[in-house]
Amino acid sequence: MAHIVLITGGARSGKSRLAEQRVLEAGPVAHYIATAQAFDSEMTARIATHRERRGPEWRTHEAPLDLLETLRATDDAPRLVDCLTLWLSNLMLAELDWESRAREMIAALPDLHHPVVFVSNELGMGIVPDNPLARAFRDAAGTLNQWIAADADEVILSVSGLPLKVK
Amino acid sequence: MAHIVLITGGARSGKSRLAEQRVLEAGPVAHYIATAQAFDSEMTARIATHRERRGPEWRTHEAPLDLLETLRATDDAPRLVDCLTLWLSNLMLAELDWESRAREMIAALPDLHHPVVFVSNELGMGIVPDNPLARAFRDAAGTLNQWIAADADEVILSVSGLPLKVK
Amino acid sequence: MAHIVLITGGARSGKSRLAEQRVLEAGPVAHYIATAQAFDSEMTARIATHRERRGPEWRTHEAPLDLLETLRATDDAPRLVDCLTLWLSNLMLAELDWESRAREMIAALPDLHHPVVFVSNELGMGIVPDNPLARAFRDAAGTLNQWIAADADEVILSVSGLPLKVK
Repeated sequence: MAHIVLITGGARSGKSRLAEQRVLEAGPVAHYIATAQAFDSEMTARIATHRERRGPEWRTHEAPLDLLETLRATDDAPRLVDCLTLWLSNLMLAELDWESRAREMIAALPDLHHPVVFVSNELGMGIVPDNPLARAFRDAAGTLNQWIAADADEVILSVSGLPLKVK
Repeated sequence: MAHIVLITGGARSGKSRLAEQRVLEAGPVAHYIATAQAFDSEMTARIATHRERRGPEWRTHEAPLDLLETLRATDDAPRLVDCLTLWLSNLMLAELDWESRAREMIAALPDLHHPVVFVSNELGMGIVPDNPLARAFRDAAGTLNQWIAADADEVILSVSGLPLKVK
Repeated sequence: MAHIVLITGGARSGKSRLAEQRVLEAGPVAHYIATAQAFDSEMTARIATHRERRGPEWRTHEAPLDLLETLRATDDAPRLVDCLTLWLSNLMLAELDWESRAREMIAALPDLHHPVVFVSNELGMGIVPDNPLARAFRDAAGTLNQWIAADADEVILSVSGLPLKVK
């Protein structure tokens, strides 16, 4: 049964770096499962920065939508999923049923063997957004974090690049 | 002297659920003191969802403004106040003096006998809002959280549905 | 070698008060290094409120840009820097190279003798801002927090006026 870790935190809080360290502690080679899609130059640059930082021990996979399939296909080493919040955004933009996809993935986690470290964004600690879509996304992201956290073996809040143990 | 708990956290961070568990640990029946006012369909739906989740052991009271009166009138069982931030918003929208009302309520807490669990929102960890009213509200909400936390017996930050003990 | 503390948190989370207590524990007199510039009446009022709260044991210095010079010039007592995020904002508005200035300051910290308590803002836990400049600022603020936290002896997250130890 796979060991599941959730690392959540704000933007530029060092979540990805903490997650990379955590995954490499679990094994000499690892899979990096990127949910990001490079729509614009800002995102392309961000993806490139992350990729440069990671070393040759990483194999990169792209899973903007089919996260569960990718988790099953990479169950021979520890995995980093970076990040859940972008996956949610992709599902919502594609008008797919994120709730049933997320529940299906969570239900399948106990069947996996190798560790999974999920990175996730904390979006709910600012002023309530005026935009109803932003509110709906914020609410969905918070709900997804709760679902994963409930089933995770460890939950960590990243603060200024440092881990704060929540579970 | 009433045991006072503050549970703060972001939107959809599981604050209300943690608070409900906390209150029911303190007694077999409990009061749910709702500060929300159903102005629109989104809020009506949210209130209905929360109400459905709670069981028959709860008696619901509405206190959009008169929170202290309601706390005094329900001092025969544990209480959940959900939430302080909406109460503040109601006071500000009604152009009432929130500072003196809040100080009066806090000063009266030691005279209560049954536990009170306050739910509150963390609004201050995003980008500074452009809108001066949003900034003023955010500042007031942070100040009110500090006042309650200073006098509370326990303070908990809810992160992805899990409690992080602050006090 | 100076003892370095970072106190981060949201708006009105009680960071400055915690920092003031921390600095006065380290010595009977202290320097208050203000990075704020009073551009408008809201900021002027905020600065005045902070100044009134502090007592006569504080000597105030203004360092909107030249933070390292001010740290060197005040190395005869504990210092409070309030705050890093405004310093960053000042550097960016002046179109100065904040990254090299920050790295230079951090590299010089081990040469200081008296404690430095940095106050900083958490800006990254809300919805992603639409505005690219706001996103860039948020990212820079998060990065700066990580850099300081990595070298700090202590890191504290202020929640509702209470300290949550991160490091």
